[in-house]
Amino acid sequence: MNGIFITFEGPDGAGKTSVMEEIVAILRDQVMIDIVETREPGGIPIAEEIRQLILDNKNVMMDERTEALLFAAARRQHLVEKINPALHAGKLVINDRFVDSSLAYQGKGRRIGMEEVAQLNEFVTEGLKPDLTLYLDIDAETGLKRAGKVANGNDRLESEGIEFHQRVRHGYIELLQKEGDRIVKVDAKQPFEQVVTECYHIIRERFPSIFRNY
Amino acid sequence: MNGIFITFEGPDGAGKTSVMEEIVAILRDQVMIDIVETREPGGIPIAEEIRQLILDNKNVMMDERTEALLFAAARRQHLVEKINPALHAGKLVINDRFVDSSLAYQGKGRRIGMEEVAQLNEFVTEGLKPDLTLYLDIDAETGLKRAGKVANGNDRLESEGIEFHQRVRHGYIELLQKEGDRIVKVDAKQPFEQVVTECYHIIRERFPSIFRNY
Repeated sequence: MNGIFITFEGPDGAGKTSVMEEIVAILRDQVMIDIVETREPGGIPIAEEIRQLILDNKNVMMDERTEALLFAAARRQHLVEKINPALHAGKLVINDRFVDSSLAYQGKGRRIGMEEVAQLNEFVTEGLKPDLTLYLDIDAETGLKRAGKVANGNDRLESEGIEFHQRVRHGYIELLQKEGDRIVKVDAKQPFEQVVTECYHIIRERFPSIFRNY
Repeated sequence: MNGIFITFEGPDGAGKTSVMEEIVAILRDQVMIDIVETREPGGIPIAEEIRQLILDNKNVMMDERTEALLFAAARRQHLVEKINPALHAGKLVINDRFVDSSLAYQGKGRRIGMEEVAQLNEFVTEGLKPDLTLYLDIDAETGLKRAGKVANGNDRLESEGIEFHQRVRHGYIELLQKEGDRIVKVDAKQPFEQVVTECYHIIRERFPSIFRNY
């Protein structure tokens, strides 16, 4: 594996996807290696089918561990067919969400346990970790408002939603505390351009030699 | 969990399914508790869909760990919807194959590693183990002949098949050595009636109090 593997992480409403797209656009102009921008299931047929199966059964009685196993299966196939070959070819892979999302959402949010979800994902990744993870941090209230998921804070179901998202954020913060070398926190409450600039500089400092004007 | 959980295991061609059906027929006449006879995916819609997805992709490039994760997902849903409720209701659950099959087939046969497949299955079972496992032992050559899978022992692909099945059997034997209390070996080369009788007596000795004429 001679490539570079960067992931973007964060709770709903952190603006992760837009920031990542902007960063990729900037990097395409400035780096000397190929960029593969992806997110699971990433157009991999088997992974897409698995995701479809999860979506089709969202409102019925799918057990949360079954769901975690299916996400893991889709991740595995995406990893084997898309991420690993790109890394082996020396490319820069930028992935929207990876194992950390499962730890935060399934492990902490759905209360399966971060340790247990981490072990499950060990089976998936066989030890592969991102070289750098940009964690866009935002509190649950602001994030949900931005994502348009909270209309009214007084509604019971919606406030359960907030607690879920608070747990997700705590999950991310726990990971940040454990793996401060790999994960760098960026305050996503800042203006969009500021978030992008900060992410850009972190990547530039971490991997200077891939930039054209190095 | 007040019920009793029995599994049947063995390589292809051991006659497992026929023996199990015969045993269930006998037990239905003789025991005082309800019997649930099942095998994954066992009519559980989500599990059936997952199995269909595995079958649909059998000949394309499904990674073997993806496959193991999908089997695990189907197992989880079958466990949650069918086995656990039956055990909680005090029933006798008799399952055709369970975790041991994954350890032998995926772990040893496909060489993923028994320890790794065991950890994956810990996520599925949360510690649930069968109270008794009847392991129908047969050598790969005889088993494959019985299962009609070997026409000609000289063919290269077919002899690879034999090596795969030899590894599967070695996997089972390793499990037997580790968990001799739970797993009981029955020689499946004996005549069918003899195999059934032996299995019957093992169950009777292990769980005498469920029999009507106890």
